[in-house]
Amino acid sequence: MPKVNSEDQILSLLDAEFPRRHPGLILGRGDDCAEFFSASPLAVSSDLFLEHIHFRRSYFTAEEVGYKALAVNLSDLAAAGAYPSGFSLNLICPPALDSAWLAAMFKGMAALARECDLPLVGGDISAGASLGLCITVWGGSRAGVSGPEAPGAFLRRGAQEGDVLFLLGPQNPWDACSLGLAALGLEVLEKYGRAAIKDYPEACAALLSPKPMLSAGQAMSSLLLEPGWAGRPAPLKAMDLSDGLRRDLPRLLGGFQQQLAAGAVFAPENCRTAASLGAGLTFTVENLHPELTAYHAGLEQKALGMALSGGDEYALLCACAPEKMDFLRKTLAERGGAPALQILGLVTEREGIRWQGIRLADILPGTGFDHFEV
Amino acid sequence: MPKVNSEDQILSLLDAEFPRRHPGLILGRGDDCAEFFSASPLAVSSDLFLEHIHFRRSYFTAEEVGYKALAVNLSDLAAAGAYPSGFSLNLICPPALDSAWLAAMFKGMAALARECDLPLVGGDISAGASLGLCITVWGGSRAGVSGPEAPGAFLRRGAQEGDVLFLLGPQNPWDACSLGLAALGLEVLEKYGRAAIKDYPEACAALLSPKPMLSAGQAMSSLLLEPGWAGRPAPLKAMDLSDGLRRDLPRLLGGFQQQLAAGAVFAPENCRTAASLGAGLTFTVENLHPELTAYHAGLEQKALGMALSGGDEYALLCACAPEKMDFLRKTLAERGGAPALQILGLVTEREGIRWQGIRLADILPGTGFDHFEV
Repeated sequence: MPKVNSEDQILSLLDAEFPRRHPGLILGRGDDCAEFFSASPLAVSSDLFLEHIHFRRSYFTAEEVGYKALAVNLSDLAAAGAYPSGFSLNLICPPALDSAWLAAMFKGMAALARECDLPLVGGDISAGASLGLCITVWGGSRAGVSGPEAPGAFLRRGAQEGDVLFLLGPQNPWDACSLGLAALGLEVLEKYGRAAIKDYPEACAALLSPKPMLSAGQAMSSLLLEPGWAGRPAPLKAMDLSDGLRRDLPRLLGGFQQQLAAGAVFAPENCRTAASLGAGLTFTVENLHPELTAYHAGLEQKALGMALSGGDEYALLCACAPEKMDFLRKTLAERGGAPALQILGLVTEREGIRWQGIRLADILPGTGFDHFEV
Repeated sequence: MPKVNSEDQILSLLDAEFPRRHPGLILGRGDDCAEFFSASPLAVSSDLFLEHIHFRRSYFTAEEVGYKALAVNLSDLAAAGAYPSGFSLNLICPPALDSAWLAAMFKGMAALARECDLPLVGGDISAGASLGLCITVWGGSRAGVSGPEAPGAFLRRGAQEGDVLFLLGPQNPWDACSLGLAALGLEVLEKYGRAAIKDYPEACAALLSPKPMLSAGQAMSSLLLEPGWAGRPAPLKAMDLSDGLRRDLPRLLGGFQQQLAAGAVFAPENCRTAASLGAGLTFTVENLHPELTAYHAGLEQKALGMALSGGDEYALLCACAPEKMDFLRKTLAERGGAPALQILGLVTEREGIRWQGIRLADILPGTGFDHFEV
């Protein structure tokens, strides 16, 4: 197959998949800057997706690489309840990359972009030692609401004691919890390559082509504007599980402090400090996905460990006041894309995270995934 | 010196240099998304800055790497006359990177960010084989003007026949044209390392720490709102010279078609098609920077070749109706940061680019810089 040998060639491959015109664009790619009509406030997320770090071409198809690079960014907007409206792509292109492969990668990305009506508005292309994508995606925080009243409502507080902890993910035939599924996908794909898909189809799909839970996040953020929601302010919080439950759950529990540290400008009324909050996880090994328990057959603790620490998971981890759960379920069914809702447990006043009463630190050694751990 | 060994360590180095709070931010970095109050229209630019491709640590200081990574992105906003309001940083961190080096890189970047009152609002960090930065920067297209009337005015057309072609760059003591200066900087730094700075201080500075011409670009775009500017609509166009004059000038001359191809939504009234436009360059070898002519002493054609093809140049290449030049000079002096304005020549009806009547193709072989040229 012909190799990529010019920037113009890459640009024409891009043009074949990504239209340059879009009603929201004033000036698309090809000039110094792109210009577009913007919502305010605007949510923005930017992520790296690098070969050998985040994916391997040995078991990702080109389409899956393109799809997932965009999907993981959209997942961040989903967690903020935002409405994506555009993205930019920076591409690091290794020597002798097959141009048909690159065209297929753009095709996979463009399919998701079309699904979300998302124009590619610019970016950069450079040669480099290994393949890498850096995508920045942005969107309005809330459809049809702007100004200081709109922003951050979805993020206005961390969890509170008694809140229900749950996951929103894609439906699956077993109504099983997806925790650990992408980590299993990684393990079996690394071991067996794409042959693993035969025995572990959903685990591999969770790793290769995760679904960003945009409709669910948007439905959650829209709830806060509903008259039926009156009561505790903003009794919702969501984040995606890219680093795994054991690392991301403390962030959710400490959400309010974290948001203040991050420069949040909203007032802390009705927010208690969450420094001492903990969580009691009530799901059982039986709730885990059958592919996960089959892989760890007879080794329940291994399955549980993978469920508690596995990252690269793009279900939304959420906390909500228990009396609001019925209303929330109804809304998700009506306009949230009817995601699977898996109850994980409750927010507790007692510090620390416990699974079935056992401290997580006693179940799992180590501190979770870090790119730079030595 | 200690090596970087955790993501948290990198985050605390970032926190030391980049404040998390800013009046424009609703939610800064640390959550899934950043959220900020946005202008509309919004201009956005995203660029890669990769070791061994765009810089070398052998002759860039850490501060210069951090500074330039942000500066080249700001230059794109400058060319659009935009007002930067935030940026995100994606960092690819190689094994065993010295943490003091990384802290100094953040310091260099933060100095420029402070100068522009620009919050760092998010991004991503990953391990990788070699050091890389991917920055996305955004800002309002025009201060205090928003809605469909504001956008793109600065970009509304390409050049027209008879327009004056000129460069806006930093002042220098010789009032010399900066064309080719960064290319010379690259050549001598590659040859002699930082020892080259002694003999070629301005050439090295042009490569190591280019100034984004933000005030000049903003003053130019603000001109279009002035009563004194009435007449031809939008008789201005600017771009930066990152790929060199011989590649970028045809883009300026073909600007209108290019903008339409890029998805521009404005109407083509008063815009003639520029397919047949050319340029007559009138500057002489004597106008070039003394460091450039000294390096190529006795070899005028070499100096000229470097001036015509050298890239990585962040002066703004502009075209303006001749009768508006006085007003433009006055505005630039008053509120454009008083840049050096170097006349390069005129836009001609005759196709092709000529220097002193000689076709560029006859002076220079090849087609200019391409990362993927084979």
